[in-house]
Amino acid sequence: MPRIPRKSDFPVNQVRRYLEPGPIVLISSAHAGRRNIMTLGWHTMLEFEPSLVGCMIAGDNHSFGLVRGSGECVINLPTAAMVDTVVGIGNCSGAQVDKFEAFGLTPRPARKVGAPLIAQCHASFECRLHDDAMVDRYNFFIFEVVKAHVAATPKQPRTLHYTGSGIFVTTGSDVIRRRSMFQPELLWPEPPGGRR
Amino acid sequence: MPRIPRKSDFPVNQVRRYLEPGPIVLISSAHAGRRNIMTLGWHTMLEFEPSLVGCMIAGDNHSFGLVRGSGECVINLPTAAMVDTVVGIGNCSGAQVDKFEAFGLTPRPARKVGAPLIAQCHASFECRLHDDAMVDRYNFFIFEVVKAHVAATPKQPRTLHYTGSGIFVTTGSDVIRRRSMFQPELLWPEPPGGRR
Repeated sequence: MPRIPRKSDFPVNQVRRYLEPGPIVLISSAHAGRRNIMTLGWHTMLEFEPSLVGCMIAGDNHSFGLVRGSGECVINLPTAAMVDTVVGIGNCSGAQVDKFEAFGLTPRPARKVGAPLIAQCHASFECRLHDDAMVDRYNFFIFEVVKAHVAATPKQPRTLHYTGSGIFVTTGSDVIRRRSMFQPELLWPEPPGGRR
Repeated sequence: MPRIPRKSDFPVNQVRRYLEPGPIVLISSAHAGRRNIMTLGWHTMLEFEPSLVGCMIAGDNHSFGLVRGSGECVINLPTAAMVDTVVGIGNCSGAQVDKFEAFGLTPRPARKVGAPLIAQCHASFECRLHDDAMVDRYNFFIFEVVKAHVAATPKQPRTLHYTGSGIFVTTGSDVIRRRSMFQPELLWPEPPGGRR
């Protein structure tokens, strides 16, 4: 388990930086005195402003009720060093265990939502439910990111990407830069180290 | 540009294997005598059976009209060796150029849709529009994958994942296996090389 990284505020309209690559994330939620964490790989960016993210949370997850009931969650970004925690969380149910306790994770109060941040993660994005029109048919929640917290280092965290069958691939060690080939209006956000 | 890989049929209910990691994909489309290709990073798996994938295709893309008009597309998976093609395609408009010709890509007839496959890609997933309920509000298309073609090798293609600002990270060179930690019912699909 990595140490708890120190995080700074991050612009909510730039969360594509971390979510567009498609990492496995940990969804934390709380409702009516209960809290939970689930592992999620089925999500996508939908808009920059407002900062919208769509997440497919299957109805048989314990988290489904907490997210639907509270209309809130936090999307946390684990690094590859947390792989065993990620797998453990995805293979037990919050109906039986408190996953913060079971996996030694530290809950921290969020600023704008009731769901807790997971302190060990590289980034945490506080979310409010923006549109539930697709929940009944597809379990697809459209969230607005209302507050973002990101660790200053490393600039390119090594993240987990799931392929099914217990196998992850990772990103972060190999970076390809093609900034000079882009139309200026498509170069957004600024790269790490550039102006913010 | 890689050589054209030889592809085999692949089970449509197992396309998570290639799409869940969140790679940049190339969307090919055709309608009313026109064809096009666009670069897309905003997509997510939504269901195994039927095999549903959601894609956010911004309304100002030339491809938007072709996909909406035909109700079809092909989701093609480029490898990292195609990065300059991927960037080039994302930085010009099909209203001005035929991107197959401009980038030396080979269109191949699909089996079940009118949109062409891109022969140089590692995989191609033929899609029909399944639900357009979220297109007007979010430009979010829900497609059903109706036919899948995948190259036999490499087993773990190196794919591109976009972080914004002209910078990609890649997956494929670093694999983490945790099969033994999973509940049996969650181990699906079988890993590459396992039974299919």
